[in-house]
Amino acid sequence: MIHRLLISYRGTAYAGWQRQTNALAVQQLLEEAVGEIVGAPATLHGAGRTDAGVHARGQVAHLDLGRAVAPGALVHAVNRRLPEDIRVLAADQVADGFHARYAAVAKEYRYRIHRAAVVSPLESPFVHRVTVDLDLAAMVAAAERLVGEHDFSAFSLVGASHRTGVRRIDRVEWLERGPEVEFRIVGGGFLRGMVRRIVGTLLEVGVGKRDAAELAELLGGATALLAGPTAPARGLVLERVDYDEHRWPELVPDARWWRSDKA
Amino acid sequence: MIHRLLISYRGTAYAGWQRQTNALAVQQLLEEAVGEIVGAPATLHGAGRTDAGVHARGQVAHLDLGRAVAPGALVHAVNRRLPEDIRVLAADQVADGFHARYAAVAKEYRYRIHRAAVVSPLESPFVHRVTVDLDLAAMVAAAERLVGEHDFSAFSLVGASHRTGVRRIDRVEWLERGPEVEFRIVGGGFLRGMVRRIVGTLLEVGVGKRDAAELAELLGGATALLAGPTAPARGLVLERVDYDEHRWPELVPDARWWRSDKA
Repeated sequence: MIHRLLISYRGTAYAGWQRQTNALAVQQLLEEAVGEIVGAPATLHGAGRTDAGVHARGQVAHLDLGRAVAPGALVHAVNRRLPEDIRVLAADQVADGFHARYAAVAKEYRYRIHRAAVVSPLESPFVHRVTVDLDLAAMVAAAERLVGEHDFSAFSLVGASHRTGVRRIDRVEWLERGPEVEFRIVGGGFLRGMVRRIVGTLLEVGVGKRDAAELAELLGGATALLAGPTAPARGLVLERVDYDEHRWPELVPDARWWRSDKA
Repeated sequence: MIHRLLISYRGTAYAGWQRQTNALAVQQLLEEAVGEIVGAPATLHGAGRTDAGVHARGQVAHLDLGRAVAPGALVHAVNRRLPEDIRVLAADQVADGFHARYAAVAKEYRYRIHRAAVVSPLESPFVHRVTVDLDLAAMVAAAERLVGEHDFSAFSLVGASHRTGVRRIDRVEWLERGPEVEFRIVGGGFLRGMVRRIVGTLLEVGVGKRDAAELAELLGGATALLAGPTAPARGLVLERVDYDEHRWPELVPDARWWRSDKA
């Protein structure tokens, strides 16, 4: 029986999602927790890797438990065995043949940039602080070029291998709130390191080192050496993974307000 | 020369703001950092205490440095000596006689309640998880009664001493976003433990144990035993402290959006 897990973690203390031999990864802790519960080694298949230090609000993974397990009981049992910076938010049972990675139709990543001289410790684990002036309008205009189907090879990690660098970007959004700027990108899939190199390149646009046309030129399969630097991991969150069937509820829906005052 | 500091901290690891003999407090770490810089013991005067585990986005304190120090240099030097969960966000020089506590004209606290079965580790250090159904409309209606000048003695810590329990509440706000509910309260001043006992009492309204009229009855100086329980510290943030002169910039201003997609 295939079970699917919705997983959130602060990536600060981890070598990333994927199990490694010499460093602690989120996948390993989850596999150990599940293994303890079922009494046999367990293998999780994640929807995508996140690199060392990258956070997740809505990572997804599947595993074959051999038998049906009630989602609530599974969530509770796994969380009891996890450190407080990793949590399974929900679980469900899915059809045979479901694969967290291959069945994913879209992913959303968010990257938070903070322009304050000093960032509040309430935010600092989750933002990249930038001290130079940014031309946000130029960054917004350049990021528009990303939407559509392009060869993003220029934005992959140097040395990374992939059959094709072509990926589909559905939407980019920017949220500016005082000193903070959040960049949101939704697409069918992302090359390894792609979001952080896109952000690094957009930051170069923001400081006038590149313009939108130069960014657009990179979208034709230029080599990995040509894009901007990789922005730091701490600012990045894998926000959600979408599937055609098997939808999760919205993680952060719209807000409602009530207010009472003396006036 | 009196200098004023704008301070933010995650309260999780600390015994609160106020220096104590047997436990680590935020004030102590700041005083040690400043003492190292000036080469003599330093005393900070905070705008208000926060209890063990309570966070601050905009705590304010003043201290007499004996001489003028450039704000930027002071901020940098103090932060270099602080752990990453405490930061001085800004500093300025203020008129002789300024007192962070007595000159404060208003304070804002925010309390976050989370109704999900499991809370993301991106939020969990900053929210109180509530697993029972809450009648939010009843809570909003009850909280309206708090606005104005009342005797809040019923909401103070049992055994706390204060000349008068009368305090002025200027505004209450609620922000609901999916499973999360944020309660915001602005007033001239707060008794020790008052915000958390207000929240504890409002949660009793939310589960039907009290109604708005019963809450209103507590606002006439009832004894401390009569209000609801103290809600957990982790959900509370001292958001900001206002002064008539010496204003800080808005810490979290309104948001602006940009969006590009295929459509």
